[in-house]
Amino acid sequence: MKLALLGCGLLGGSTAAAWRRSGLAAYASGYDLDPAAARAGVSAQILDQAAPDVAAAVRGADLILLASPVGAMAGLLAEVALHAPAEAVITDVGSTKGSVVQAARAALGDRIGRFVPAHPVAGSERPGIQHADARLFEGRRVITTPLPETELPALARVEELWKASGAIVERLEVGEHDRIFAAVSHLPHLLSFALVDAISGREGGEKELRYAGAGFRDFSRIAASDPVMWRDVCLANAGPLGDVLEEYRALLSALQQAIATADAQSLQDLFSRAASVRRAHTFAGGPE
Amino acid sequence: MKLALLGCGLLGGSTAAAWRRSGLAAYASGYDLDPAAARAGVSAQILDQAAPDVAAAVRGADLILLASPVGAMAGLLAEVALHAPAEAVITDVGSTKGSVVQAARAALGDRIGRFVPAHPVAGSERPGIQHADARLFEGRRVITTPLPETELPALARVEELWKASGAIVERLEVGEHDRIFAAVSHLPHLLSFALVDAISGREGGEKELRYAGAGFRDFSRIAASDPVMWRDVCLANAGPLGDVLEEYRALLSALQQAIATADAQSLQDLFSRAASVRRAHTFAGGPE
Repeated sequence: MKLALLGCGLLGGSTAAAWRRSGLAAYASGYDLDPAAARAGVSAQILDQAAPDVAAAVRGADLILLASPVGAMAGLLAEVALHAPAEAVITDVGSTKGSVVQAARAALGDRIGRFVPAHPVAGSERPGIQHADARLFEGRRVITTPLPETELPALARVEELWKASGAIVERLEVGEHDRIFAAVSHLPHLLSFALVDAISGREGGEKELRYAGAGFRDFSRIAASDPVMWRDVCLANAGPLGDVLEEYRALLSALQQAIATADAQSLQDLFSRAASVRRAHTFAGGPE
Repeated sequence: MKLALLGCGLLGGSTAAAWRRSGLAAYASGYDLDPAAARAGVSAQILDQAAPDVAAAVRGADLILLASPVGAMAGLLAEVALHAPAEAVITDVGSTKGSVVQAARAALGDRIGRFVPAHPVAGSERPGIQHADARLFEGRRVITTPLPETELPALARVEELWKASGAIVERLEVGEHDRIFAAVSHLPHLLSFALVDAISGREGGEKELRYAGAGFRDFSRIAASDPVMWRDVCLANAGPLGDVLEEYRALLSALQQAIATADAQSLQDLFSRAASVRRAHTFAGGPE
């Protein structure tokens, strides 16, 4: 089986490494806008070939994995449609699904049945294929969002690859996926980026950051994430993210009011509810 | 030397344990509103005596450590003023300093010179003196905010105890302390509590939380913190916290606009600035 990796970053590289480790991909070719990234994948022994363009990468491929920032997927899919074998199964690792599915429908036409939208809930703040980790998905969730047209053998093949990589595979409807991840992933990233920028942009902000402790450290860890990836996520999932951001802003406005009026009970009630939810929560695959 | 601990929680217990480990406190008495907490301190061999009231705890004490939520410190200080030996050095571990200093001035009168305001930048989401850790402060910052009246021998004594506990001691002016920690500690706690409450309160929120990954896990870790402690911090530091919350809300409003208008450049600029600050940042005493 030949795997074509389009977008050679941390997540795509880890996926290719995991799938190859499970023995299901004998040969892997990779393409990236930055040729050095594909070459780094060859150096890391994840890829056999650094392809000069999409056409070369997908030539003869049985399985095509889209792992670019989601904003670049429409362009990649258009080239895949032109150059990939008709029977190839196409899948992705994007954090948003609605925009990717829309691009896939537009690009692939009646080959849409062999497109399997997927989202591994895993990552790392260390960017680049040189930090790829074949064990990144062990015990982690991978969400597939099959379409009405999705062909069952294509879906089964992709889900098997993920299971063989140690992941817990679950299915969600596309819109539900995007609403859920707007709340539990995209919004926290936005808030974390915003806090670091707000503090460092203040007068004396650099000095202030020197006093940050473990709470800030954990809260802000995701602010080290890839800016282009997250720019694309915010734009691709603008509707659901905008909705949950608006709800959150309303809650902050109420909290500002509670602080200004010394409304101790409201503060304590909210903090108690949150602490009780957070303490009771267990996370799939990750240490507490 | 006799130490009196007023407020027998995780932070006070860890402080008492650290100071006793350094050999500087031969006897320790503890009082807590909840008698079981002081008894737990005796069971944990951090305290020698569970005192029935403040008067009993501070009798004959050389050093008095206030470690309650900051909202309870005014009441404790009033009793300390009534019952403690005149020469006793009094200090605290509160996360806010302006409100504590105000309460100390009101309660202690001309004994204010022997009050040393301090804030160890350390903690744990596991509440209770039974989780106390004498090594909690190794490599961590402890901020003292001496007043014009603070007597140098009292200040030196408290700072020596912290240094002997492995902490890095720094001094700040009271108002500057409160402005800095509003930004780097109090606001992130508020945002984290608010996010967990916002998501879990949504229709289907419990299901949504099932999909939370490592980013949410880290972001929300501080939402498991003690609700009463943080209620008090928000109220005690309402001015500086209100200011930085308002700045942050304005930034979120701009982000909402950028998402709604697909302003890719603004999003990428902000995310890039934040990622670059966060990646370059090193945290005192804590692993990355």
